[in-house]
Amino acid sequence: MARIIDGTEISRVMREELAKQVAELRDSGVTPGLSVVLVGNNPASQAYVASKTRACEALGMKGQTLNLPEDVSKEELFAVIDRLNADPAVHGILVQLPLPAHLPYKAVLEHLHPDKDVDGFHPVNAGLAFVGDPRAFVPCTPAGIMEMLRRESIPTRGKHVVIVGRSLIVSKPLASLLMAPGPDATVTLTHRHTSDLASYTRQADILIVAVGKQNLITADMVKPGVVVIDVGQNRVPDESSPRGYRMVGDVDFDAIRLKAEAITPVPGGVGPMTITMLLANTLQAARQARQARDLPGSPR
Amino acid sequence: MARIIDGTEISRVMREELAKQVAELRDSGVTPGLSVVLVGNNPASQAYVASKTRACEALGMKGQTLNLPEDVSKEELFAVIDRLNADPAVHGILVQLPLPAHLPYKAVLEHLHPDKDVDGFHPVNAGLAFVGDPRAFVPCTPAGIMEMLRRESIPTRGKHVVIVGRSLIVSKPLASLLMAPGPDATVTLTHRHTSDLASYTRQADILIVAVGKQNLITADMVKPGVVVIDVGQNRVPDESSPRGYRMVGDVDFDAIRLKAEAITPVPGGVGPMTITMLLANTLQAARQARQARDLPGSPR
Repeated sequence: MARIIDGTEISRVMREELAKQVAELRDSGVTPGLSVVLVGNNPASQAYVASKTRACEALGMKGQTLNLPEDVSKEELFAVIDRLNADPAVHGILVQLPLPAHLPYKAVLEHLHPDKDVDGFHPVNAGLAFVGDPRAFVPCTPAGIMEMLRRESIPTRGKHVVIVGRSLIVSKPLASLLMAPGPDATVTLTHRHTSDLASYTRQADILIVAVGKQNLITADMVKPGVVVIDVGQNRVPDESSPRGYRMVGDVDFDAIRLKAEAITPVPGGVGPMTITMLLANTLQAARQARQARDLPGSPR
Repeated sequence: MARIIDGTEISRVMREELAKQVAELRDSGVTPGLSVVLVGNNPASQAYVASKTRACEALGMKGQTLNLPEDVSKEELFAVIDRLNADPAVHGILVQLPLPAHLPYKAVLEHLHPDKDVDGFHPVNAGLAFVGDPRAFVPCTPAGIMEMLRRESIPTRGKHVVIVGRSLIVSKPLASLLMAPGPDATVTLTHRHTSDLASYTRQADILIVAVGKQNLITADMVKPGVVVIDVGQNRVPDESSPRGYRMVGDVDFDAIRLKAEAITPVPGGVGPMTITMLLANTLQAARQARQARDLPGSPR
Protein backbone atom coordinates (compact mmCIF):
# COMPACT_ATOMS: atom_id res chain seq x y z
CA MET A 1 0.00 0.00 0.00
CA ALA A 2 1.55 3.26 -1.14
CA ARG A 3 2.66 5.95 1.22
CA ILE A 4 0.44 9.03 0.79
CA ILE A 5 2.40 12.20 0.01
CA ASP A 6 0.58 14.78 2.12
CA GLY A 7 0.81 18.12 0.34
CA THR A 8 -1.22 19.85 3.01
CA GLU A 9 1.26 18.83 5.71
CA ILE A 10 4.34 19.66 3.60
CA SER A 11 2.77 23.06 2.90
CA ARG A 12 2.09 23.64 6.58
CA VAL A 13 5.72 22.97 7.48
CA MET A 14 6.97 25.14 4.62
CA ARG A 15 4.69 28.02 5.58
CA GLU A 16 6.01 27.90 9.14
CA GLU A 17 9.55 28.16 7.75
CA LEU A 18 8.50 30.98 5.42
CA ALA A 19 6.79 32.87 8.26
CA LYS A 20 10.08 32.88 10.20
CA GLN A 21 11.96 34.20 7.17
CA VAL A 22 9.31 36.87 6.63
CA ALA A 23 9.64 37.92 10.28
CA GLU A 24 13.43 38.26 9.87
CA LEU A 25 13.00 40.37 6.76
CA ARG A 26 10.43 42.56 8.54
CA ASP A 27 12.89 43.02 11.40
CA SER A 28 15.31 44.44 8.85
CA GLY A 29 12.62 46.85 7.65
CA VAL A 30 11.11 45.12 4.60
CA THR A 31 7.59 43.67 4.51
CA PRO A 32 7.21 41.47 1.42
CA GLY A 33 4.20 42.59 -0.61
CA LEU A 34 2.13 40.78 -3.24
CA SER A 35 -0.36 42.59 -5.46
CA VAL A 36 -2.93 40.52 -7.29
CA VAL A 37 -4.70 42.07 -10.27
CA LEU A 38 -8.16 40.62 -10.86
CA VAL A 39 -10.21 41.67 -13.88
CA GLY A 40 -13.98 41.07 -13.72
CA ASN A 41 -16.14 39.12 -11.32
CA ASN A 42 -15.61 35.44 -12.09
CA PRO A 43 -16.50 33.73 -8.77
CA ALA A 44 -13.82 31.03 -9.10
CA SER A 45 -11.13 33.66 -9.81
CA GLN A 46 -12.38 35.75 -6.88
CA ALA A 47 -12.05 32.73 -4.60
CA TYR A 48 -8.50 31.93 -5.81
CA VAL A 49 -7.39 35.53 -5.42
CA ALA A 50 -8.88 35.78 -1.92
CA SER A 51 -7.07 32.61 -0.83
CA LYS A 52 -3.77 33.93 -2.22
CA THR A 53 -3.93 37.28 -0.42
CA ARG A 54 -5.21 35.57 2.75
CA ALA A 55 -2.21 33.20 2.68
CA CYS A 56 0.10 36.22 2.35
CA GLU A 57 -1.41 37.95 5.35
CA ALA A 58 -1.20 34.74 7.42
CA LEU A 59 2.56 34.72 6.83
CA GLY A 60 3.06 38.35 7.79
CA MET A 61 3.37 39.54 4.21
CA LYS A 62 1.23 42.27 2.68
CA GLY A 63 -1.43 41.01 0.27
CA GLN A 64 -3.41 43.41 -1.87
CA THR A 65 -6.07 42.82 -4.53
CA LEU A 66 -6.79 45.32 -7.30
CA ASN A 67 -10.16 44.46 -8.77
CA LEU A 68 -10.67 46.05 -12.19
CA PRO A 69 -13.94 46.08 -14.12
CA GLU A 70 -14.57 43.39 -16.75
CA ASP A 71 -14.44 45.98 -19.55
CA VAL A 72 -11.14 47.62 -18.48
CA SER A 73 -9.10 48.66 -21.51
CA LYS A 74 -5.65 47.31 -22.25
CA GLU A 75 -4.25 50.81 -21.71
CA GLU A 76 -5.89 51.14 -18.29
CA LEU A 77 -4.64 47.71 -17.26
CA PHE A 78 -1.10 48.56 -18.46
CA ALA A 79 -1.23 51.79 -16.44
CA VAL A 80 -2.12 49.81 -13.30
CA ILE A 81 0.77 47.41 -13.96
CA ASP A 82 3.14 50.34 -14.61
CA ARG A 83 2.22 51.76 -11.22
CA LEU A 84 2.81 48.41 -9.47
CA ASN A 85 6.10 47.91 -11.38
CA ALA A 86 7.28 51.25 -10.01
CA ASP A 87 6.01 50.82 -6.42
CA PRO A 88 8.89 49.77 -4.12
CA ALA A 89 6.44 48.33 -1.55
CA VAL A 90 5.17 45.83 -4.15
CA HIS A 91 7.61 42.93 -4.58
CA GLY A 92 5.40 40.48 -6.41
CA ILE A 93 2.67 41.07 -9.00
CA LEU A 94 0.27 38.45 -10.24
CA VAL A 95 -2.37 38.91 -12.91
CA GLN A 96 -5.10 36.35 -12.31
CA LEU A 97 -5.88 34.29 -15.41
CA PRO A 98 -7.98 33.82 -17.43
CA LEU A 99 -8.36 37.42 -18.64
CA PRO A 100 -11.40 38.59 -20.64
CA ALA A 101 -10.98 37.89 -24.37
CA HIS A 102 -10.40 41.55 -25.33
CA LEU A 103 -7.17 41.66 -23.28
CA PRO A 104 -4.03 40.15 -24.90
CA TYR A 105 -2.81 37.98 -22.03
CA LYS A 106 0.68 37.43 -23.48
CA ALA A 107 1.32 41.16 -23.84
CA VAL A 108 -0.10 41.69 -20.33
CA LEU A 109 2.25 39.09 -18.81
CA GLU A 110 5.21 40.62 -20.71
CA HIS A 111 4.28 44.02 -19.29
CA LEU A 112 5.07 42.89 -15.73
CA HIS A 113 8.55 43.76 -14.53
CA PRO A 114 10.35 40.40 -14.63
CA ASP A 115 11.77 41.10 -11.15
CA LYS A 116 8.19 41.09 -9.81
CA ASP A 117 6.79 38.27 -11.96
CA VAL A 118 6.24 35.78 -9.11
CA ASP A 119 4.15 33.48 -11.33
CA GLY A 120 7.23 33.00 -13.56
CA PHE A 121 5.27 33.50 -16.80
CA HIS A 122 7.35 36.36 -18.26
CA PRO A 123 9.63 35.19 -21.12
CA VAL A 124 12.71 36.40 -19.23
CA ASN A 125 11.86 34.15 -16.29
CA ALA A 126 10.94 31.26 -18.59
CA GLY A 127 14.35 31.69 -20.25
CA LEU A 128 16.27 31.98 -16.98
CA ALA A 129 14.49 28.90 -15.60
CA PHE A 130 15.25 27.04 -18.83
CA VAL A 131 18.98 27.65 -18.44
CA GLY A 132 18.91 26.94 -14.69
CA ASP A 133 19.70 30.49 -13.59
CA PRO A 134 19.02 30.87 -9.84
CA ARG A 135 17.57 34.37 -10.41
CA ALA A 136 14.56 32.84 -12.21
CA PHE A 137 11.10 32.73 -10.73
CA VAL A 138 9.97 29.19 -11.42
CA PRO A 139 6.21 28.69 -12.03
CA CYS A 140 4.52 27.61 -8.79
CA THR A 141 3.18 24.16 -9.67
CA PRO A 142 6.43 22.68 -11.04
CA ALA A 143 8.39 24.39 -8.24
CA GLY A 144 5.99 22.82 -5.73
CA ILE A 145 6.44 19.35 -7.22
CA MET A 146 10.25 19.68 -7.03
CA GLU A 147 9.92 20.74 -3.39
CA MET A 148 7.65 17.75 -2.61
CA LEU A 149 10.12 15.30 -4.13
CA ARG A 150 12.99 16.83 -2.13
CA ARG A 151 11.10 16.89 1.16
CA GLU A 152 9.84 13.33 0.68
CA SER A 153 13.43 12.22 -0.05
CA ILE A 154 12.42 10.73 -3.39
CA PRO A 155 15.63 10.37 -5.43
CA THR A 156 15.55 11.55 -9.04
CA ARG A 157 19.16 11.06 -10.21
CA GLY A 158 19.27 8.52 -13.01
CA LYS A 159 15.60 7.70 -12.47
CA HIS A 160 13.19 7.59 -15.38
CA VAL A 161 10.60 10.33 -14.91
CA VAL A 162 7.68 10.09 -17.33
CA ILE A 163 5.52 13.21 -17.62
CA VAL A 164 2.07 13.00 -19.20
CA GLY A 165 0.97 16.34 -20.67
CA ARG A 166 3.02 19.17 -22.16
CA SER A 167 1.55 22.38 -20.76
CA LEU A 168 3.75 25.46 -20.65
CA ILE A 169 3.00 26.18 -17.00
CA VAL A 170 3.42 22.68 -15.55
CA SER A 171 4.89 19.90 -17.69
CA LYS A 172 7.47 21.68 -19.84
CA PRO A 173 9.12 23.67 -17.01
CA LEU A 174 9.03 20.53 -14.86
CA ALA A 175 10.78 18.48 -17.54
CA SER A 176 13.42 21.20 -17.78
CA LEU A 177 13.96 21.26 -13.99
CA LEU A 178 14.14 17.48 -13.63
CA MET A 179 16.68 16.90 -16.42
CA ALA A 180 19.01 19.66 -15.18
CA PRO A 181 22.25 19.09 -13.26
CA GLY A 182 21.32 18.35 -9.66
CA PRO A 183 18.03 16.47 -10.11
CA ASP A 184 19.68 14.59 -13.02
CA ALA A 185 16.61 12.59 -14.02
CA THR A 186 16.14 10.91 -17.39
CA VAL A 187 12.92 12.55 -18.59
CA THR A 188 10.31 11.44 -21.12
CA LEU A 189 7.54 13.85 -22.04
CA THR A 190 4.37 12.35 -23.50
CA HIS A 191 1.14 13.94 -24.75
CA ARG A 192 -1.96 13.42 -26.89
CA HIS A 193 0.09 12.40 -29.94
CA THR A 194 2.13 9.79 -28.09
CA SER A 195 1.41 6.35 -29.51
CA ASP A 196 0.97 3.58 -26.94
CA LEU A 197 1.08 5.82 -23.86
CA ALA A 198 1.12 2.80 -21.53
CA SER A 199 4.42 1.59 -23.02
CA TYR A 200 5.98 4.76 -21.58
CA THR A 201 4.10 5.06 -18.29
CA ARG A 202 5.03 1.44 -17.45
CA GLN A 203 8.71 2.42 -17.60
CA ALA A 204 8.33 5.24 -15.09
CA ASP A 205 10.13 5.23 -11.77
CA ILE A 206 8.33 8.51 -11.16
CA LEU A 207 5.12 9.25 -13.07
CA ILE A 208 3.79 12.81 -13.22
CA VAL A 209 0.36 13.30 -14.76
CA ALA A 210 -0.91 16.77 -15.66
CA VAL A 211 -3.63 16.46 -18.26
CA GLY A 212 -7.03 17.06 -16.63
CA LYS A 213 -8.75 13.78 -17.52
CA GLN A 214 -10.23 11.50 -14.88
CA ASN A 215 -8.90 7.90 -14.87
CA LEU A 216 -6.44 8.60 -17.68
CA ILE A 217 -3.91 6.39 -15.88
CA THR A 218 -5.13 2.99 -14.73
CA ALA A 219 -3.30 0.46 -12.57
CA ASP A 220 -2.22 -1.69 -15.54
CA MET A 221 -0.30 1.34 -16.88
CA VAL A 222 2.20 1.57 -14.01
CA LYS A 223 4.91 -0.69 -12.67
CA PRO A 224 5.06 -1.83 -9.03
CA GLY A 225 6.96 0.59 -6.82
CA VAL A 226 6.31 3.68 -8.93
CA VAL A 227 6.02 7.13 -7.35
CA VAL A 228 2.92 8.93 -8.72
CA ILE A 229 2.43 12.70 -8.72
CA ASP A 230 -1.10 13.56 -9.80
CA VAL A 231 -1.54 17.18 -10.94
CA GLY A 232 -5.08 16.66 -12.32
CA GLN A 233 -8.01 18.56 -10.83
CA ASN A 234 -11.30 17.18 -12.18
CA ARG A 235 -14.82 17.74 -10.86
CA VAL A 236 -17.08 14.73 -10.72
CA PRO A 237 -20.76 14.89 -9.69
CA ASP A 238 -21.29 13.75 -6.10
CA GLU A 239 -24.70 14.13 -4.53
CA SER A 240 -23.36 13.32 -1.08
CA SER A 241 -21.22 16.48 -1.18
CA PRO A 242 -22.84 19.77 -0.16
CA ARG A 243 -21.37 21.35 -3.32
CA GLY A 244 -22.77 18.54 -5.50
CA TYR A 245 -19.32 17.52 -6.75
CA ARG A 246 -15.93 16.28 -5.54
CA MET A 247 -12.43 16.68 -6.95
CA VAL A 248 -10.44 13.79 -8.40
CA GLY A 249 -7.08 13.63 -10.19
CA ASP A 250 -5.99 12.05 -13.46
CA VAL A 251 -5.04 8.64 -12.04
CA ASP A 252 -7.13 5.78 -10.67
CA PHE A 253 -6.03 6.49 -7.11
CA ASP A 254 -7.62 3.52 -5.31
CA ALA A 255 -6.22 0.88 -7.68
CA ILE A 256 -2.79 2.46 -8.23
CA ARG A 257 -2.34 2.94 -4.51
CA LEU A 258 -2.05 -0.84 -4.20
CA LYS A 259 0.92 -0.96 -6.60
CA ALA A 260 2.77 2.31 -6.02
CA GLU A 261 5.45 3.15 -3.47
CA ALA A 262 4.11 6.66 -2.94
CA ILE A 263 1.28 8.73 -4.39
CA THR A 264 -0.18 12.22 -4.07
CA PRO A 265 -3.92 12.40 -3.34
CA VAL A 266 -6.38 14.82 -4.94
CA PRO A 267 -7.28 17.00 -3.14
CA GLY A 268 -4.46 17.50 -0.65
CA GLY A 269 -1.48 16.65 -2.86
CA VAL A 270 0.02 19.05 -5.40
CA GLY A 271 -2.74 21.65 -4.94
CA PRO A 272 -1.72 23.08 -1.56
CA MET A 273 1.93 23.34 -2.72
CA THR A 274 1.08 25.80 -5.48
CA ILE A 275 0.03 28.75 -3.27
CA THR A 276 2.91 27.93 -0.91
CA MET A 277 5.39 28.35 -3.77
CA LEU A 278 3.73 31.65 -4.70
CA LEU A 279 4.48 32.81 -1.15
CA ALA A 280 8.06 31.54 -1.47
CA ASN A 281 8.49 33.38 -4.78
CA THR A 282 7.14 36.59 -3.24
CA LEU A 283 9.65 36.27 -0.40
CA GLN A 284 12.41 35.67 -2.98
CA ALA A 285 11.27 38.79 -4.88
CA ALA A 286 11.42 40.88 -1.70
CA ARG A 287 14.91 39.59 -0.94
CA GLN A 288 16.15 40.14 -4.49
CA ALA A 289 14.73 43.68 -4.48
CA ARG A 290 17.30 44.48 -1.80
CA GLN A 291 20.21 43.40 -3.97
CA ALA A 292 19.95 44.55 -7.59
CA ARG A 293 18.89 41.43 -9.47
CA ASP A 294 20.70 42.79 -12.54
CA LEU A 295 18.31 41.20 -14.96
CA PRO A 296 17.77 41.88 -18.63
CA GLY A 297 14.25 42.79 -19.60
CA SER A 298 13.16 45.93 -17.83
CA PRO A 299 9.88 47.04 -19.30
CA ARG A 300 9.97 49.99 -21.64
CA MET B 1 21.92 0.52 -46.11
CA ALA B 2 20.85 3.85 -44.65
CA ARG B 3 20.15 6.89 -46.76
CA ILE B 4 22.77 9.57 -46.08
CA ILE B 5 21.27 12.90 -45.00
CA ASP B 6 23.43 15.36 -46.89
CA GLY B 7 23.66 18.54 -44.80
CA THR B 8 25.95 20.18 -47.33
CA GLU B 9 23.37 19.80 -50.09
CA ILE B 10 20.42 20.85 -47.90
CA SER B 11 22.45 23.91 -46.90
CA ARG B 12 23.25 24.72 -50.53
CA VAL B 13 19.54 24.65 -51.45
CA MET B 14 18.61 26.72 -48.38
CA ARG B 15 21.28 29.31 -49.11
CA GLU B 16 19.95 29.70 -52.66
CA GLU B 17 16.50 30.34 -51.23
CA LEU B 18 17.91 32.76 -48.64
CA ALA B 19 19.90 34.64 -51.32
CA LYS B 20 16.65 35.27 -53.22
CA GLN B 21 14.97 36.58 -50.07
CA VAL B 22 17.98 38.79 -49.31
CA ALA B 23 17.81 40.20 -52.86
CA GLU B 24 14.12 41.04 -52.39
CA LEU B 25 14.82 42.77 -49.09
CA ARG B 26 17.67 44.73 -50.68
CA ASP B 27 15.31 45.81 -53.47
CA SER B 28 13.11 47.30 -50.76
CA GLY B 29 16.11 49.18 -49.38
CA VAL B 30 17.34 46.97 -46.52
CA THR B 31 20.62 45.06 -46.59
CA PRO B 32 20.68 42.53 -43.73
CA GLY B 33 23.82 43.04 -41.65
CA LEU B 34 25.59 40.73 -39.20
CA SER B 35 28.31 41.96 -36.83
CA VAL B 36 30.55 39.39 -35.22
CA VAL B 37 32.49 40.40 -32.13
CA LEU B 38 35.71 38.42 -31.68
CA VAL B 39 37.87 38.87 -28.59
CA GLY B 40 41.48 37.77 -28.85
CA ASN B 41 43.38 35.75 -31.44
CA ASN B 42 42.33 32.12 -30.99
CA PRO B 43 42.96 30.62 -34.46
CA ALA B 44 39.94 28.30 -34.35
CA SER B 45 37.66 31.21 -33.39
CA GLN B 46 39.20 33.36 -36.13
CA ALA B 47 38.46 30.64 -38.68
CA TYR B 48 34.83 30.26 -37.51
CA VAL B 49 34.25 33.99 -37.57
CA ALA B 50 35.77 34.34 -41.03
CA SER B 51 33.55 31.56 -42.39
CA LYS B 52 30.46 33.23 -40.89
CA THR B 53 31.10 36.66 -42.37
CA ARG B 54 32.13 35.09 -45.69
CA ALA B 55 28.85 33.16 -45.80
CA CYS B 56 26.98 36.45 -45.18
CA GLU B 57 28.72 38.19 -48.03
CA ALA B 58 28.08 35.26 -50.37
CA LEU B 59 24.35 35.72 -49.77
CA GLY B 60 24.37 39.46 -50.40
CA MET B 61 24.23 40.36 -46.70
CA LYS B 62 26.72 42.61 -44.96
CA GLY B 63 29.17 40.76 -42.69
CA GLN B 64 31.46 42.66 -40.35
CA THR B 65 33.99 41.45 -37.77
CA LEU B 66 35.04 43.55 -34.79
CA ASN B 67 38.26 42.10 -33.43
CA LEU B 68 38.96 43.28 -29.88
CA PRO B 69 42.19 42.65 -27.98
CA GLU B 70 42.42 39.67 -25.62
CA ASP B 71 42.62 42.01 -22.60
CA VAL B 72 39.62 44.17 -23.49
CA SER B 73 37.72 45.22 -20.36
CA LYS B 74 34.10 44.33 -19.71
CA GLU B 75 33.22 48.03 -19.93
CA GLU B 76 34.92 48.43 -23.31
CA LEU B 77 33.18 45.31 -24.64
CA PHE B 78 29.81 46.55 -23.35
CA ALA B 79 30.41 49.91 -25.06
CA VAL B 80 31.03 48.11 -28.37
CA ILE B 81 27.84 46.09 -27.91
CA ASP B 82 25.89 49.26 -27.00
CA ARG B 83 27.02 50.84 -30.25
CA LEU B 84 25.97 47.77 -32.28
CA ASN B 85 22.64 47.57 -30.40
CA ALA B 86 21.94 51.16 -31.46
CA ASP B 87 23.16 50.88 -35.07
CA PRO B 88 20.16 50.46 -37.43
CA ALA B 89 22.41 48.92 -40.14
CA VAL B 90 23.29 46.06 -37.80
CA HIS B 91 20.46 43.51 -37.61
CA GLY B 92 22.30 40.61 -36.02
CA ILE B 93 25.07 40.57 -33.42
CA LEU B 94 27.07 37.52 -32.45
CA VAL B 95 29.73 37.36 -29.75
CA GLN B 96 32.07 34.50 -30.62
CA LEU B 97 32.52 32.07 -27.73
CA PRO B 98 34.52 31.14 -25.76
CA LEU B 99 35.40 34.51 -24.24
CA PRO B 100 38.57 35.04 -22.15
CA ALA B 101 38.01 34.08 -18.52
CA HIS B 102 37.96 37.67 -17.21
CA LEU B 103 34.80 38.44 -19.21
CA PRO B 104 31.47 37.28 -17.71
CA TYR B 105 29.96 35.56 -20.76
CA LYS B 106 26.42 35.38 -19.33
CA ALA B 107 26.32 39.11 -18.64
CA VAL B 108 27.82 39.74 -22.09
CA LEU B 109 25.13 37.67 -23.83
CA GLU B 110 22.42 39.42 -21.78
CA HIS B 111 23.83 42.75 -22.89
CA LEU B 112 22.91 42.08 -26.53
CA HIS B 113 19.60 43.55 -27.62
CA PRO B 114 17.34 40.49 -27.82
CA ASP B 115 16.04 41.69 -31.20
CA LYS B 116 19.60 41.29 -32.57
CA ASP B 117 20.57 38.12 -30.70
CA VAL B 118 20.78 35.84 -33.76
CA ASP B 119 22.50 33.08 -31.77
CA GLY B 120 19.36 32.86 -29.57
CA PHE B 121 21.36 32.76 -26.32
CA HIS B 122 19.72 35.76 -24.57
CA PRO B 123 17.28 34.67 -21.82
CA VAL B 124 14.41 36.47 -23.57
CA ASN B 125 14.96 34.40 -26.70
CA ALA B 126 15.41 31.20 -24.69
CA GLY B 127 12.09 31.97 -22.98
CA LEU B 128 10.25 32.84 -26.19
CA ALA B 129 11.59 29.67 -27.86
CA PHE B 130 10.55 27.65 -24.80
CA VAL B 131 6.94 28.82 -25.12
CA GLY B 132 6.95 28.44 -28.92
CA ASP B 133 6.69 32.16 -29.68
CA PRO B 134 7.44 32.78 -33.38
CA ARG B 135 9.36 35.96 -32.51
CA ALA B 136 12.11 33.86 -30.88
CA PHE B 137 15.53 33.40 -32.38
CA VAL B 138 16.14 29.67 -32.03
CA PRO B 139 19.79 28.60 -31.50
CA CYS B 140 21.31 27.59 -34.82
CA THR B 141 22.15 23.91 -34.27
CA PRO B 142 18.70 22.80 -33.01
CA ALA B 143 17.04 25.01 -35.63
CA GLY B 144 19.21 23.35 -38.29
CA ILE B 145 18.25 19.85 -37.13
CA MET B 146 14.53 20.74 -37.26
CA GLU B 147 15.03 22.07 -40.80
CA MET B 148 16.87 18.88 -41.83
CA LEU B 149 14.07 16.66 -40.52
CA ARG B 150 11.45 18.75 -42.37
CA ARG B 151 13.34 18.85 -45.65
CA GLU B 152 14.10 15.11 -45.51
CA SER B 153 10.36 14.46 -44.86
CA ILE B 154 11.14 12.56 -41.67
CA PRO B 155 7.91 12.47 -39.66
CA THR B 156 8.13 13.31 -35.95
CA ARG B 157 4.48 13.23 -34.80
CA GLY B 158 3.98 10.48 -32.24
CA LYS B 159 7.52 9.21 -32.89
CA HIS B 160 9.86 8.49 -30.02
CA VAL B 161 12.81 10.86 -30.25
CA VAL B 162 15.65 10.00 -27.88
CA ILE B 163 18.23 12.73 -27.32
CA VAL B 164 21.61 11.91 -25.79
CA GLY B 165 23.16 14.91 -24.03
CA ARG B 166 21.52 17.85 -22.28
CA SER B 167 23.44 20.95 -23.39
CA LEU B 168 21.70 24.30 -23.20
CA ILE B 169 22.57 25.22 -26.78
CA VAL B 170 21.67 21.97 -28.54
CA SER B 171 19.80 19.24 -26.64
CA LYS B 172 17.49 21.16 -24.33
CA PRO B 173 16.16 23.61 -26.95
CA LEU B 174 15.82 20.71 -29.40
CA ALA B 175 13.77 18.69 -26.88
CA SER B 176 11.54 21.72 -26.40
CA LEU B 177 11.04 22.21 -30.16
CA LEU B 178 10.34 18.53 -30.86
CA MET B 179 7.72 18.07 -28.11
CA ALA B 180 5.80 21.24 -29.08
CA PRO B 181 2.54 21.28 -31.03
CA GLY B 182 3.39 20.77 -34.69
CA PRO B 183 6.38 18.41 -34.42
CA ASP B 184 4.44 16.52 -31.69
CA ALA B 185 7.19 14.03 -30.88
CA THR B 186 7.41 11.99 -27.69
CA VAL B 187 10.81 13.05 -26.37
CA THR B 188 13.22 11.36 -23.96
CA LEU B 189 16.30 13.26 -22.85
CA THR B 190 19.22 11.20 -21.54
CA HIS B 191 22.64 12.19 -20.19
CA ARG B 192 25.62 11.05 -18.13
CA HIS B 193 23.42 10.08 -15.16
CA THR B 194 21.04 7.93 -17.22
CA SER B 195 21.26 4.33 -16.12
CA ASP B 196 21.31 1.77 -18.95
CA LEU B 197 21.53 4.26 -21.81
CA ALA B 198 21.08 1.50 -24.40
CA SER B 199 17.63 0.64 -23.02
CA TYR B 200 16.56 4.12 -24.14
CA THR B 201 18.48 4.44 -27.40
CA ARG B 202 17.05 1.08 -28.57
CA GLN B 203 13.55 2.55 -28.30
CA ALA B 204 14.35 5.51 -30.54
CA ASP B 205 12.57 6.06 -33.83
CA ILE B 206 14.82 9.09 -34.15
CA LEU B 207 18.10 9.19 -32.22
CA ILE B 208 19.91 12.49 -31.76
CA VAL B 209 23.37 12.35 -30.20
CA ALA B 210 25.11 15.51 -29.00
CA VAL B 211 27.75 14.59 -26.46
CA GLY B 212 31.21 14.85 -28.06
CA LYS B 213 32.44 11.30 -27.48
CA GLN B 214 33.58 9.06 -30.32
CA ASN B 215 31.76 5.69 -30.65
CA LEU B 216 29.41 6.48 -27.77
CA ILE B 217 26.61 4.84 -29.75
CA THR B 218 27.33 1.41 -31.22
CA ALA B 219 25.18 -0.65 -33.57
CA ASP B 220 23.77 -2.86 -30.81
CA MET B 221 22.31 0.27 -29.19
CA VAL B 222 19.89 1.12 -32.01
CA LYS B 223 16.90 -0.60 -33.54
CA PRO B 224 16.61 -1.37 -37.25
CA GLY B 225 15.07 1.48 -39.21
CA VAL B 226 16.16 4.24 -36.84
CA VAL B 227 16.94 7.75 -38.11
CA VAL B 228 20.24 8.95 -36.59
CA ILE B 229 21.26 12.61 -36.25
CA ASP B 230 24.89 12.84 -35.12
CA VAL B 231 25.83 16.25 -33.67
CA GLY B 232 29.22 15.10 -32.39
CA GLN B 233 32.43 16.68 -33.71
CA ASN B 234 35.46 14.75 -32.53
CA ARG B 235 39.02 14.92 -33.82
CA VAL B 236 40.82 11.62 -34.28
CA PRO B 237 44.47 11.33 -35.31
CA ASP B 238 44.84 10.44 -38.99
CA GLU B 239 48.30 10.43 -40.56
CA SER B 240 46.85 10.15 -44.04
CA SER B 241 45.20 13.57 -43.65
CA PRO B 242 47.29 16.68 -44.38
CA ARG B 243 46.03 18.16 -41.08
CA GLY B 244 47.01 15.02 -39.17
CA TYR B 245 43.45 14.38 -37.98
CA ARG B 246 39.95 13.76 -39.26
CA MET B 247 36.54 14.54 -37.79
CA VAL B 248 34.15 11.85 -36.58
CA GLY B 249 30.82 12.01 -34.80
CA ASP B 250 29.47 10.33 -31.65
CA VAL B 251 28.05 7.23 -33.38
CA ASP B 252 29.73 4.25 -35.02
CA PHE B 253 28.76 5.40 -38.49
CA ASP B 254 29.93 2.42 -40.56
CA ALA B 255 28.15 -0.17 -38.43
CA ILE B 256 24.97 1.81 -37.71
CA ARG B 257 24.63 2.69 -41.37
CA LEU B 258 23.81 -0.99 -42.02
CA LYS B 259 20.82 -0.89 -39.61
CA ALA B 260 19.47 2.65 -39.88
CA GLU B 261 16.96 4.08 -42.32
CA ALA B 262 18.79 7.40 -42.55
CA ILE B 263 21.87 8.91 -40.93
CA THR B 264 23.81 12.18 -40.96
CA PRO B 265 27.53 11.90 -41.70
CA VAL B 266 30.32 13.77 -39.90
CA PRO B 267 31.50 15.95 -41.50
CA GLY B 268 28.79 17.07 -43.93
CA GLY B 269 25.72 16.45 -41.74
CA VAL B 270 24.57 18.80 -39.01
CA GLY B 271 27.67 21.03 -39.25
CA PRO B 272 26.89 22.87 -42.48
CA MET B 273 23.32 23.55 -41.29
CA THR B 274 24.49 25.62 -38.32
CA ILE B 275 25.94 28.55 -40.27
CA THR B 276 23.00 28.39 -42.66
CA MET B 277 20.58 28.89 -39.75
CA LEU B 278 22.69 31.83 -38.54
CA LEU B 279 22.14 33.38 -41.97
CA ALA B 280 18.40 32.61 -41.73
CA ASN B 281 18.23 34.20 -38.27
CA THR B 282 20.03 37.31 -39.53
CA LEU B 283 17.51 37.61 -42.37
CA GLN B 284 14.69 37.17 -39.82
CA ALA B 285 16.24 39.92 -37.67
CA ALA B 286 16.41 42.29 -40.63
CA ARG B 287 12.77 41.58 -41.49
CA GLN B 288 11.62 41.97 -37.90
CA ALA B 289 13.51 45.26 -37.57
CA ARG B 290 11.09 46.67 -40.14
CA GLN B 291 8.04 45.81 -38.04
CA ALA B 292 8.45 46.60 -34.37
CA ARG B 293 9.04 43.19 -32.78
CA ASP B 294 7.45 44.55 -29.59
CA LEU B 295 9.58 42.40 -27.34
CA PRO B 296 10.19 42.65 -23.65
CA GLY B 297 13.78 43.00 -22.61
CA SER B 298 15.33 46.10 -24.12
CA PRO B 299 18.74 46.61 -22.59
CA ARG B 300 19.03 49.22 -19.93
